[in-house]
Amino acid sequence: MIETPYLLFLGDAPDQLAAKVAQGIKDWRPDNCVGQLRMEGCRADLGLADMTLQEARAAGARTLVIGVANRGGVISASWKKVLVAALEEGFDLASGLHNLLRDEPDLAAVADACGRALHDVRIPEVRYPIANGVKRAGKRVLAVGTDCSVGKMYTGLALDDALRARGMKSTFRATGQTGILITGDGVPLDAVVADFMAGSIEWLTPDNDPDHWDVIEGQGSLFHVSYSGVTMALIHGGQPDALILSHEPTRDHMRGLPGYALPSLEALRDTALPLARIANPACQVVGVSINTQHMSDDEARAYCEETEARLGLPTVDPYRHGAERLAEALAAL
Amino acid sequence: MIETPYLLFLGDAPDQLAAKVAQGIKDWRPDNCVGQLRMEGCRADLGLADMTLQEARAAGARTLVIGVANRGGVISASWKKVLVAALEEGFDLASGLHNLLRDEPDLAAVADACGRALHDVRIPEVRYPIANGVKRAGKRVLAVGTDCSVGKMYTGLALDDALRARGMKSTFRATGQTGILITGDGVPLDAVVADFMAGSIEWLTPDNDPDHWDVIEGQGSLFHVSYSGVTMALIHGGQPDALILSHEPTRDHMRGLPGYALPSLEALRDTALPLARIANPACQVVGVSINTQHMSDDEARAYCEETEARLGLPTVDPYRHGAERLAEALAAL
Repeated sequence: MIETPYLLFLGDAPDQLAAKVAQGIKDWRPDNCVGQLRMEGCRADLGLADMTLQEARAAGARTLVIGVANRGGVISASWKKVLVAALEEGFDLASGLHNLLRDEPDLAAVADACGRALHDVRIPEVRYPIANGVKRAGKRVLAVGTDCSVGKMYTGLALDDALRARGMKSTFRATGQTGILITGDGVPLDAVVADFMAGSIEWLTPDNDPDHWDVIEGQGSLFHVSYSGVTMALIHGGQPDALILSHEPTRDHMRGLPGYALPSLEALRDTALPLARIANPACQVVGVSINTQHMSDDEARAYCEETEARLGLPTVDPYRHGAERLAEALAAL
Repeated sequence: MIETPYLLFLGDAPDQLAAKVAQGIKDWRPDNCVGQLRMEGCRADLGLADMTLQEARAAGARTLVIGVANRGGVISASWKKVLVAALEEGFDLASGLHNLLRDEPDLAAVADACGRALHDVRIPEVRYPIANGVKRAGKRVLAVGTDCSVGKMYTGLALDDALRARGMKSTFRATGQTGILITGDGVPLDAVVADFMAGSIEWLTPDNDPDHWDVIEGQGSLFHVSYSGVTMALIHGGQPDALILSHEPTRDHMRGLPGYALPSLEALRDTALPLARIANPACQVVGVSINTQHMSDDEARAYCEETEARLGLPTVDPYRHGAERLAEALAAL
């Protein structure tokens, strides 16, 4: 559990895209962000107040979150200076970088001396159980994709917002590094040891109020041969009551797999639903989320309408159209 | 890669069942076994020559394999004495115990001083790649089960034997600790990190002669919610040309999951085959292996005949009837 609120570290980000993790945190959990810290030469800007470490501490910030990709996989000397100062100032550090904070001897030593925590969200910090398959109280929804990176996290975050806006009880359950940094908690599923994958998702989505929804962040795709095992563990560990089908219509092959075509939404439905019903016989497919970022407004609307008619399911781009109709579908379950 | 041949350490096994790993090695790779080492009070016997460490070294043994479960998860002082002496005598050690050889400071120190290897086969020793899904040369067959522990390893080992007996090229590819100890090599799939599961199986079953069969050891079950992700990764990483359906007919629920009924063989077929065809569109279900250990001869024969008629696939208990008909089915592919 990462302590909030955050000061977002943008470092010397060469452009806005390099700070996309910070952007995600600011977009989805603005209340968690007291400000941003930018070094000389930084070309990203989240529109938050620029703060020194001292100012941010005074404003209540507890954790400095590295919301920017580093260059060449190295934590540079200029970054180090800021990170060490932050620990000395009383901040915990949180990072989703491939190279771990804990593997930097100076950071580890200073954190230890100051009694501060280093959160490397790519690495599990919990000993997860083996899944037991026992039915849990409360409701769960999971987005499954025709491919990786089709907007499943975005769909989940938007749906969580829309459920709360309706006055329903909802918790977004992060299963990837960006999601974990956004919410401060979760399971870095791609780094969990095989035997404990499904158990980690049971752990993440425990018994809850009967009318509470866990919105579980999806990962991978049953049709993506590199990561399908991770998706399978989410479906069985999450025992979802509801599935949302996610798709990006303009791809000509599976991400990173040139020889592999994307499945149809029908094929995804017919594959995912029977598998989900092994863990939860009541599971239903309730809607479709389309990532229309590469389409015009007209194309996007036409594609969603056509899909809705074909599948008989509410179909939206949660970014363009909001997730209200998906929330409605859950409310109607 | 564990160096062969082996001296099999049976320790103070309280009964034959406690030495089942050693029994598996002796049954499936007798040529790898020069003898057995039994301590005072040992009640297991593989029918191999009892040897001292010196005698076994003189007979060519390279590795002392712990083929017995330890009591209470502790490597006892009396075991230690033998293991240390073995290292000093020039043996490597190999173990599938939960508590690792490398975590015993005395064993680690002696192994280091003697330049010997400690193989803990529960722990991956390789940095596996992420799967790339590229079609590989050669043929692959995988057993998939209605449940865990229904005889998939046994089916694979028997099939490997039967293929070789026909003069075909075949390699058994171990994916679990017992299989790895039997063959001296493999991937401990249940201990691999999620993102690398499918890649580890691609690594295990690389390009080969067009007429060579990799017989991949199955794990878990698509219908077992604790481990289905592992099975999924095997199906996509292995890109099998052939599937064999494995079943144990007398179970009244999934292993360790009281609320879950076993699927039918038809449901297994209809679930596994479309998923396998994502990675290999030519994949076929070629046969059925039934574990009839809890049935009489008559019941076993009747069950296999009935299943064969129902599914239209050669159906055998490889232990009772041999795996020749399954090998025949592969030859006919």
